[in-house]
Amino acid sequence: MKNFAVLAVSVAAMTFPGFANAQAKPEDVIKYRQSVFKVMAWNFGAMAAMAKGETPYNKDAFARHAANVEFVSRLAIEGFSAGTDKGDTKAKPEVWSKMDDFKAKMGKMNDEAAKLSQLAKSGGFDEIKKQFGTTGASCKACHDDYKNK
Amino acid sequence: MKNFAVLAVSVAAMTFPGFANAQAKPEDVIKYRQSVFKVMAWNFGAMAAMAKGETPYNKDAFARHAANVEFVSRLAIEGFSAGTDKGDTKAKPEVWSKMDDFKAKMGKMNDEAAKLSQLAKSGGFDEIKKQFGTTGASCKACHDDYKNK
Repeated sequence: MKNFAVLAVSVAAMTFPGFANAQAKPEDVIKYRQSVFKVMAWNFGAMAAMAKGETPYNKDAFARHAANVEFVSRLAIEGFSAGTDKGDTKAKPEVWSKMDDFKAKMGKMNDEAAKLSQLAKSGGFDEIKKQFGTTGASCKACHDDYKNK
Repeated sequence: MKNFAVLAVSVAAMTFPGFANAQAKPEDVIKYRQSVFKVMAWNFGAMAAMAKGETPYNKDAFARHAANVEFVSRLAIEGFSAGTDKGDTKAKPEVWSKMDDFKAKMGKMNDEAAKLSQLAKSGGFDEIKKQFGTTGASCKACHDDYKNK
């Protein structure tokens, strides 16, 4: 068993060479959160295209993208750990100096994304679009206060 | 209601200006899949650090990272759409010429990640580490065949 554990770790290290460190480097944390937001934005964009009528509304696809945003939105906060305020980032220093408010706004966004995901499974397209707008506004609330252009 | 829908779309467009297009550009699809893998690698790396003993084993944290990998691993395949084989990518052309095998290997990886996530909630650390190794090997199977160094 012990040998297998060693093998497991070695496979992991081979597969993800840069990530087997006990403490992640600030630049890796920054890349992590940016990746999380990129995944969210992609799925949000697919919904936006349907809301705009640029692509046909597909209930299952919309619900899938909404579920993706709901889940992945919860990962973002881990990417704002202490000491990750400097570097290649658009995050304002206020993220860290007003962390309680930042977390509250992130939580609000998580909640709105969860509502959207729930509604997307069973609601009518008009109310889905309304909640999509509310969710987008909850994203924007953080962007306005905590993200440089 | 119609005006609200317009507002919703406009908020979405403000928030994610580049993603409101009906058809995503190949370079955006490539960035999407790379972001998905980065999110997976981050969470995988956190588990690897525990498996290696570099950070203390925390059952809840390990289970959370395993659940993250399980969920996000299912998003990857959408990032390998037709026409996204050229550009800033390490994906080999075989991804598209052997798509059935690629999808099967991705599916196997999704399944192993799901088993890991399940086990992480209730299993002993030794068997969790064993399944962690199996999951890592299922990642590596695709890296070997379908990813350039």
